[in-house]
Amino acid sequence: MSKFARRMTTMEKSAAVIRGLFGNMNDPEIISFGGGAPAKEALPIDIVREITNEVMRIDKRGVEALQYGSVMGLPDLREIIVTDLLAPKGVKGTVDNVMITNGGLEPMNLVCQLYIEPGDVILVESPTFVHSVEIFEMFQAKCISVDMDDNGMIPEDLEAKIIKHKPKLVYVVPTFQNPTGRTLSLDRREKIAKLGSNYDVIILEDDPYRDIRYSGRDLAPIKAFDETGHTILASSFSKVFSPGSRLGYVLANDELIPKLFDSKTATNSHTSTLSQVVCAEFFKRGYYPLHHKKICDLYRERRDVMIESIDKFFPEGTKRTFPDGGLFTWAELPGDINTTELLLESINKPDVKVSYIAGESFFIEGGGMGNNCMRISFGGVTPEQIRIGVEKLGNLICSKLISFPKLKIVNG
Amino acid sequence: MSKFARRMTTMEKSAAVIRGLFGNMNDPEIISFGGGAPAKEALPIDIVREITNEVMRIDKRGVEALQYGSVMGLPDLREIIVTDLLAPKGVKGTVDNVMITNGGLEPMNLVCQLYIEPGDVILVESPTFVHSVEIFEMFQAKCISVDMDDNGMIPEDLEAKIIKHKPKLVYVVPTFQNPTGRTLSLDRREKIAKLGSNYDVIILEDDPYRDIRYSGRDLAPIKAFDETGHTILASSFSKVFSPGSRLGYVLANDELIPKLFDSKTATNSHTSTLSQVVCAEFFKRGYYPLHHKKICDLYRERRDVMIESIDKFFPEGTKRTFPDGGLFTWAELPGDINTTELLLESINKPDVKVSYIAGESFFIEGGGMGNNCMRISFGGVTPEQIRIGVEKLGNLICSKLISFPKLKIVNG
Repeated sequence: MSKFARRMTTMEKSAAVIRGLFGNMNDPEIISFGGGAPAKEALPIDIVREITNEVMRIDKRGVEALQYGSVMGLPDLREIIVTDLLAPKGVKGTVDNVMITNGGLEPMNLVCQLYIEPGDVILVESPTFVHSVEIFEMFQAKCISVDMDDNGMIPEDLEAKIIKHKPKLVYVVPTFQNPTGRTLSLDRREKIAKLGSNYDVIILEDDPYRDIRYSGRDLAPIKAFDETGHTILASSFSKVFSPGSRLGYVLANDELIPKLFDSKTATNSHTSTLSQVVCAEFFKRGYYPLHHKKICDLYRERRDVMIESIDKFFPEGTKRTFPDGGLFTWAELPGDINTTELLLESINKPDVKVSYIAGESFFIEGGGMGNNCMRISFGGVTPEQIRIGVEKLGNLICSKLISFPKLKIVNG
Repeated sequence: MSKFARRMTTMEKSAAVIRGLFGNMNDPEIISFGGGAPAKEALPIDIVREITNEVMRIDKRGVEALQYGSVMGLPDLREIIVTDLLAPKGVKGTVDNVMITNGGLEPMNLVCQLYIEPGDVILVESPTFVHSVEIFEMFQAKCISVDMDDNGMIPEDLEAKIIKHKPKLVYVVPTFQNPTGRTLSLDRREKIAKLGSNYDVIILEDDPYRDIRYSGRDLAPIKAFDETGHTILASSFSKVFSPGSRLGYVLANDELIPKLFDSKTATNSHTSTLSQVVCAEFFKRGYYPLHHKKICDLYRERRDVMIESIDKFFPEGTKRTFPDGGLFTWAELPGDINTTELLLESINKPDVKVSYIAGESFFIEGGGMGNNCMRISFGGVTPEQIRIGVEKLGNLICSKLISFPKLKIVNG
């Protein structure tokens, strides 16, 4: 058969890793702390039915929902993004600066189309979001990691690596980061925006979890500090509305929008207008505030139960993050437990049957980095499942660490 | 600002042409034979409302419609494609050979990801579909055109150009082709499939209009003659269900599917499950046959009125195609009328105000090819608008050809 393009080889490894990671999540007997999907209780099913019942009519928005739409997306949905979602966070921009995308990941693909030639460097957090790395590798970029701590990416290390590697892009998930649940501090947001401007590097800010904050103080996006147009903000409706509607967006300055328009045209013309109409009406008909409160209450309770259970059942010396929002926490285990090896046992042992994502898959450096870590999602599991699952998982971990007593642990 | 990737330059020209082409279509005073959108009467608005009313419930398909879905798409929709849409046409394949895409154009992007390196050759019909060319140029492919006649792409010229240019892909729109409305004959379909196998070249068959045939005999797709897996079939639900739901699909052999899976993952993870659930139920609840008859009746009438009106009002010496399906015809004018220049007048003259797409934009060769041609869509205009618009356009053309009498013309 015909020869494949080189990009298919560079992405093959990361794709195989991801298929392995997420492949086993559908066994109904397993309590899954693996997937990053929203709770099914957080899906606005009845609201969507009410909306379609109202607007799917020839004299309402029926034609608009089913006919071809514009490349940029529906004007009223873009207006909602600018006015209701971004302006209150300090992000400036008009409706012309926003494009609707097919889900929250597509902006990464479109931005790579704008900038990435084979061999170009993209700086990412360590650890980082694997699906974005998969896109970067499809574009044959070289990903290099930047150190992070509990306050997110470290600007001093970022600056040193910008100078050394001359990257095209810096990829940051600033809020309730995937996989760690960490949030980039406000002063670092400002510093990173300025590094983009000063060194003429694009900061690609991927912020899909921002709007599910249920404790702590809201922080302005990196984009709010951008004075030169070097920051591109990507986000998603997957967590606040629904992942299945596949709606994301990208906000960029006037120079970049025509290029993003061309990229989107050459990718899939435009995003589902059916989804866009329903989502726009979700906001315009005033469903969002109550729904938002409902899902924040839901996830806050799950987070609290998760943290409490980890602190109770995981061994002494465990470090874990305390996320103020989003869907996961990150745990670093004591001793020399390999979480990749442990996962097989955890999934398959009849008295455990608990899944999570092994930490090393999020480190592009390889070499065993993060092999004592795990990403633990609490979004899609009930409090009861969390209590049971964490106890079982904690007991399994403790059984590997017989010398470590099951005691209260350090807050990471 | 940061330097853009080279692909942004190669696609800039075609993107600008397309924006120019389709930019002026929304003036409500203009009778538009320009756009290729389905009639609004052909959109199943009430059906979609009925379906969502039934299935958007927690105990029905509500969770499935709003939650993350699989990269490949919903199994039942893929089953419908294989069993109901493709098997009757002689195309073999299982549900595992089909992937759902975000609209009918995305398969072209995904297949380019698999194969195209900068400088690779893609053979296309002359004239061809501009939006696909835009994708090919984004991948920095070199497009070379293959001659066609009233029976579609000419296999002898294709073979000669395969030998000469060693292309990675051959792009064909076999049925009611965009822009000409022509249909590739059955024997040529078989020949083209065999050329793909014999020369180890991928035949990318783009067949979105196939299912809106309203006269003549149905023809098996090229894919039905493919014995080696060299043909990839792409199609769309835009014409038979709705463009706004953004649903297309690609059918490929077992070797290619994992690669398409990786490409789709690295593009936008998956296609809207909301759209997919509604579309699957459209077929499963038995709405399709009646809806299909309704839209075929609608378009047949419009085609007939269009052909009758062209024959009546366009000047002697005009050649036009007679499409057995799809949404447009193609006219070649006598004399030395330049349809690009004429368009400005046709859109702006107060007593005309009729649009179409000028022919030369569909010829990648440039050099004035097709500058006496026009693509004339009849899908989105009522029979009354067709009669009025064609009379006005015909009169304008005839006024440019004072020596040619307004008489009956040759059937092309």
